[in-house]
Amino acid sequence: MTDRVVLAYSGGLDTSVAIPYLAKMTGGEVVAVALDLGQGGEDMESVRQRALDCGAVEAVVVDAKDEFAEEYCLPTIKANGMYMKQYPLVSAISRPLIVKHLVEAAEEHGGTHVAHGCTGKGNDQVRFEVGFADMNPDLKIIAPARDFAWTRDKAIAFAEDINLPIEQSTKSPFSIDQNVWGRAVETGFLEDLWNPPTKDLYAYTEDPAMGNAPDELIISFKGGVPVAIDGKKVTVLEAIEELNRRGGAQGVGRLDMVEDRLVGIKSREVYEAPGAMVLITAHQALEDVTVERELARYKRLIDARWSEEVYDGLWFAPLKRSLDAFIESTQENVTGDIRVVLHGGRVTVNGRRSESSLYDFNLATYDTGDTFDQTLARGFVELHGLSSKIACRRDREAGK
Amino acid sequence: MTDRVVLAYSGGLDTSVAIPYLAKMTGGEVVAVALDLGQGGEDMESVRQRALDCGAVEAVVVDAKDEFAEEYCLPTIKANGMYMKQYPLVSAISRPLIVKHLVEAAEEHGGTHVAHGCTGKGNDQVRFEVGFADMNPDLKIIAPARDFAWTRDKAIAFAEDINLPIEQSTKSPFSIDQNVWGRAVETGFLEDLWNPPTKDLYAYTEDPAMGNAPDELIISFKGGVPVAIDGKKVTVLEAIEELNRRGGAQGVGRLDMVEDRLVGIKSREVYEAPGAMVLITAHQALEDVTVERELARYKRLIDARWSEEVYDGLWFAPLKRSLDAFIESTQENVTGDIRVVLHGGRVTVNGRRSESSLYDFNLATYDTGDTFDQTLARGFVELHGLSSKIACRRDREAGK
Amino acid sequence: MTDRVVLAYSGGLDTSVAIPYLAKMTGGEVVAVALDLGQGGEDMESVRQRALDCGAVEAVVVDAKDEFAEEYCLPTIKANGMYMKQYPLVSAISRPLIVKHLVEAAEEHGGTHVAHGCTGKGNDQVRFEVGFADMNPDLKIIAPARDFAWTRDKAIAFAEDINLPIEQSTKSPFSIDQNVWGRAVETGFLEDLWNPPTKDLYAYTEDPAMGNAPDELIISFKGGVPVAIDGKKVTVLEAIEELNRRGGAQGVGRLDMVEDRLVGIKSREVYEAPGAMVLITAHQALEDVTVERELARYKRLIDARWSEEVYDGLWFAPLKRSLDAFIESTQENVTGDIRVVLHGGRVTVNGRRSESSLYDFNLATYDTGDTFDQTLARGFVELHGLSSKIACRRDREAGK
Amino acid sequence: MTDRVVLAYSGGLDTSVAIPYLAKMTGGEVVAVALDLGQGGEDMESVRQRALDCGAVEAVVVDAKDEFAEEYCLPTIKANGMYMKQYPLVSAISRPLIVKHLVEAAEEHGGTHVAHGCTGKGNDQVRFEVGFADMNPDLKIIAPARDFAWTRDKAIAFAEDINLPIEQSTKSPFSIDQNVWGRAVETGFLEDLWNPPTKDLYAYTEDPAMGNAPDELIISFKGGVPVAIDGKKVTVLEAIEELNRRGGAQGVGRLDMVEDRLVGIKSREVYEAPGAMVLITAHQALEDVTVERELARYKRLIDARWSEEVYDGLWFAPLKRSLDAFIESTQENVTGDIRVVLHGGRVTVNGRRSESSLYDFNLATYDTGDTFDQTLARGFVELHGLSSKIACRRDREAGK
Repeated sequence: MTDRVVLAYSGGLDTSVAIPYLAKMTGGEVVAVALDLGQGGEDMESVRQRALDCGAVEAVVVDAKDEFAEEYCLPTIKANGMYMKQYPLVSAISRPLIVKHLVEAAEEHGGTHVAHGCTGKGNDQVRFEVGFADMNPDLKIIAPARDFAWTRDKAIAFAEDINLPIEQSTKSPFSIDQNVWGRAVETGFLEDLWNPPTKDLYAYTEDPAMGNAPDELIISFKGGVPVAIDGKKVTVLEAIEELNRRGGAQGVGRLDMVEDRLVGIKSREVYEAPGAMVLITAHQALEDVTVERELARYKRLIDARWSEEVYDGLWFAPLKRSLDAFIESTQENVTGDIRVVLHGGRVTVNGRRSESSLYDFNLATYDTGDTFDQTLARGFVELHGLSSKIACRRDREAGK
Repeated sequence: MTDRVVLAYSGGLDTSVAIPYLAKMTGGEVVAVALDLGQGGEDMESVRQRALDCGAVEAVVVDAKDEFAEEYCLPTIKANGMYMKQYPLVSAISRPLIVKHLVEAAEEHGGTHVAHGCTGKGNDQVRFEVGFADMNPDLKIIAPARDFAWTRDKAIAFAEDINLPIEQSTKSPFSIDQNVWGRAVETGFLEDLWNPPTKDLYAYTEDPAMGNAPDELIISFKGGVPVAIDGKKVTVLEAIEELNRRGGAQGVGRLDMVEDRLVGIKSREVYEAPGAMVLITAHQALEDVTVERELARYKRLIDARWSEEVYDGLWFAPLKRSLDAFIESTQENVTGDIRVVLHGGRVTVNGRRSESSLYDFNLATYDTGDTFDQTLARGFVELHGLSSKIACRRDREAGK
Repeated sequence: MTDRVVLAYSGGLDTSVAIPYLAKMTGGEVVAVALDLGQGGEDMESVRQRALDCGAVEAVVVDAKDEFAEEYCLPTIKANGMYMKQYPLVSAISRPLIVKHLVEAAEEHGGTHVAHGCTGKGNDQVRFEVGFADMNPDLKIIAPARDFAWTRDKAIAFAEDINLPIEQSTKSPFSIDQNVWGRAVETGFLEDLWNPPTKDLYAYTEDPAMGNAPDELIISFKGGVPVAIDGKKVTVLEAIEELNRRGGAQGVGRLDMVEDRLVGIKSREVYEAPGAMVLITAHQALEDVTVERELARYKRLIDARWSEEVYDGLWFAPLKRSLDAFIESTQENVTGDIRVVLHGGRVTVNGRRSESSLYDFNLATYDTGDTFDQTLARGFVELHGLSSKIACRRDREAGK
Repeated sequence: MTDRVVLAYSGGLDTSVAIPYLAKMTGGEVVAVALDLGQGGEDMESVRQRALDCGAVEAVVVDAKDEFAEEYCLPTIKANGMYMKQYPLVSAISRPLIVKHLVEAAEEHGGTHVAHGCTGKGNDQVRFEVGFADMNPDLKIIAPARDFAWTRDKAIAFAEDINLPIEQSTKSPFSIDQNVWGRAVETGFLEDLWNPPTKDLYAYTEDPAMGNAPDELIISFKGGVPVAIDGKKVTVLEAIEELNRRGGAQGVGRLDMVEDRLVGIKSREVYEAPGAMVLITAHQALEDVTVERELARYKRLIDARWSEEVYDGLWFAPLKRSLDAFIESTQENVTGDIRVVLHGGRVTVNGRRSESSLYDFNLATYDTGDTFDQTLARGFVELHGLSSKIACRRDREAGK
């Protein structure tokens, strides 16, 4: 039987040339699979046609924007998903969805191999390959950039050799990954950690210093899901898109960080994720009002672990699924409205209202209506501190 | 023996009137203790004199600014101390220092009681009283506002009755606690969570929207301690003061949150802490470069727990001290420079350099000089994902 | 309207006398509620009659054994519930069930108050009262032993005064709480921590040193639930009862510990819980075979926190319920057989088999059939250790 | 320069033959390093001579028993180190010490390589190699069993070929690793998880069912360190040795488990560790008396993570060292006596006394002398449960 390689196809030069290259290397056929995750750029039909022109025996394009928003971005909102407290997992959550579609295409089109374009020192190779192993361990994996040291220069030379009908763009200095949830940029001069980012790095956000008028809006959630903006019903995808636009216009969501990669090294990364940042900020603020204290404290640990699992390529892993069960159980009453102001690169929450609120005006107020029984405090304070008091006394005496 | 009440004295109306009131209620004498924690306002000598004028048998004033910065703010920097990921513990870290000085004054001046002005529904009563129990459980505690329902109106009437030489200010609508680390504001209209904060709430920060030119600066740390700003040596106190000034001018450090109080209720709080926010942001960014991945992941949990312990009034408790030991052990190499831009309410890190950096250019770069051996990746990825792969296969088969 | 006090009634002297006492103290009526949780002793009908004889206007007896086993013991098995790694929560899990039935009885019989017999220094008052607040905060709570300093001596005197038709037993030196899940004993001489327990403390277990022949058995679980013993189908209640009998005969399940009470003190406790110990040991062993490594590591933290929550009286609290969701999500494949030997006080697991096993003979074996690709190891080891290697090099250089 | 391979040498057939084999494969010289970790067997001088006879250019033997006890076993006691709550890390803690001595020998004797005998599917290769990378990353690593598929059969054939002066033992069916801290056994028939262990597996322990008279003893600790047994001063090594003897005689410390290996597979392991089990049990019981509740709760998490780190080969890693700092800070007052009974395979604690005890008789007693103020309880209970009460009310209303 002929080998069939199912390739994660972007439409760009590298993966286009990879089609004939993989066919040659394996002696088999290539099925190209491209996903629209809201990354913008050309229309998917052109992408599909290019794959066929380059020799793919099948070319599958999928509009996966809503699936990505509902099944991957939404859990990230519910988990307030921020790796290292900062990074909203832009690339990390797209990989498992690509894996899912590649595996489905392989099962439909008789694929024996799957191929991706990642190098051997990044996180994405791990996310792809652990995903493949979790979803269908019988598929063999090819990573030309890593396994055959396949580079852009080789790709161009190979394209010329075989007269591939592809336009040779000048090499961009940036390595970019983008989707509707955000945009990741790496580039040589950022590898010196002392260099600040330059303005040309950014595409989703305006300069925060530009001085637009503030943009105030109300985001409504139901059970942890964003359902309306300024009272107008939205899907999750629409919420992200609108907040990308409005947040981006205010310079919200830029991030410059040194990141702990799963392969053991630290790397400099620049991200833009305006919609993600606004949604997670608002969601967190609503949790602050609707989730009980001890549950909220523990959920912060769960959220952090969830983010690490997802960053580490373990989207389909058992632990990730059980963390999801915990998180899902906390969201039922995360319902209400958050008012935020977007301005000068900041997302500022300045109002919350919720029928599920745990804030009790009569317990909290210092004015008329106060129902808090202050006589309870003394007993609470004494017993809250009793074990520490006994230990401190012992420690003082031991210190003598 | 005559009772002696050692009172946490602020110099304001309420605690001034408390001096004769406590003397009357206990039939004893009052020793007033006032600390300068950088809260500003009148000079400490006037405060001391007022206490004596109101009938205190002793009045102790202490310039505790450096002690506060070195022993209380600095550990908060090292712990990236943020309760609920947001609040830099402004009031929470001042209470144990006040406790310490009250207990010392009691031991020096024959105090039998200690007194504080907190109500029975806040956190500060807990912080005071657990602190007293930890430091000297023999001291009896009086909290007039809570135990005698002592209010401002009663205080004013009592002052008039006894012709106390004190000026009657009009009641401010704000309840304020401030020190060099920050400022906390509560006020009636914020008790409706939907009301945004108004401009007159703020005193440490300018309006972030005012449009100053950005302020770029370099903060240098040594072993987790801020030691220089723009190359000029500073003490911790000076660092906080300078960054309060420069951060405040850029509107940095405002916070509007719903907070989970230790007594079981949620409350709305507004804070300003420009210096704290700049220092913790810079410190965290330096840790991102100098602390190893697994240690950094675990330290985030430790930091969060540390913040909860401190918030919960357990500064002197055994767990807090062991968390300190963990944190201290991580700081040795948190040494280097962080460049930040303060502007429009944001603190943006845009450069880091460190002789203790764990960032390895040659491992991270995609350019010339790359020393990362990509052939290692395949084995790593396979075994990293192996336990999940086996479980996913079992789960798929079980699902059939 | 007349007050109606719904009393947690045991049938013993103290709560029998409490019936007329509470009626007198409140001027109201008393509804007695007694639950059969497998504590043994007299039949429930006699208990019911005694309550009426003592003046209760209603006496409700409930056979709650199966409900207790299914809804309270089973979650404890799934959570491998051991407070301080040792104590299987014997009393802690019975209180919320009693609360539930008291609240139901109050709602059915017009109760305005609920009453329990606990003192003010134990955990059970917290479990009762937090449970009442969670289930029906409108019910007022009376705890005569704590609030009225109601003691056994006072009870006997009061019973004589009113000629209560109750037999006056000689005071047992033991304070005992028991149900099908186990038995808790406190007694004066154990308050000296150096005193060993004496033989007369025990009722559920024989002396482990007595030298019976070993008892080998097979416990089958399905989805974390014990469903058969030695191939014979059992309910959860039957499993506990049979293992109490067989484990008890072998001296299994005795425990002598110093425990951290929720009210801040340490106390000495002796427990017997043969069935609980056997079931949790077997369940844990089956999880070791069927739960993936990272999930298992995290579940140990969740299990520990679950046990603390339950110990701390927070059975109905939001965090407890979300921990349940996590735990439940891990149990689907905890299916299989565990062979244990009960002997000399020990539970020894010596065999496991499961269709859901994650143990893969071909990956584990060092004999023929080995499918583990050892060439993967080198890459794994290098990248697993890379971040530590970089940090150790930095630390060595910094140390110079 | 000639390569020099520093070999972890046991004195057995495999590593003896490895000496000429490594010399041949590398064209270099072999330095053999053997450590006495209390594994018993022949005297170290014979081991040294055999290495030389087999062609080693240097043979270093080290009596590392005390170093092992003080620097590796003692931290395990302080951490109550049990991987998966069961396994006292017998092999895991010996590897870093072997690494340390191999690296020192390499630095002294001009070693360019280090060699170990582990396969590619176990944990020990990871512990060795991460240790080497942490201690001296310049040393090249050779693992003949893994890298050259070097097996016992090949070793025997090779020994015959070159007439190596070594006795050919019949192949034991057991793969054994042992030291003073314990003994690990793997063998083919255990790879069927349903097979029970057989009696011939055990060497450190008698059959627990054999019916010796109970052995009661008192273990004294000072700052977490075992310092005396039955009042007689001991070193840590002597404590382990004596408790191995006395515990072993009572069948204490056998363990049969399915273990989660770091390389992603589950494996069946049988261990014996009588001294370790007795010491950790006693140490834990003393902590229960001397460590404050919240610290104890957190330390359980730290202990578990410490055990995972050590199991995972990260002894020298930054996180492990910071966990050590936490643990060390908790041990100061872990001082006192624990009375245990060893019998029938069980370690039973039945008495504790300590000058650092946090148990307060007057707070705990229900008899004369009770100083606990029960009126404090009501306020404590109400505020302890307040946030849950508010949430449960909201949830009930939301459920309607």
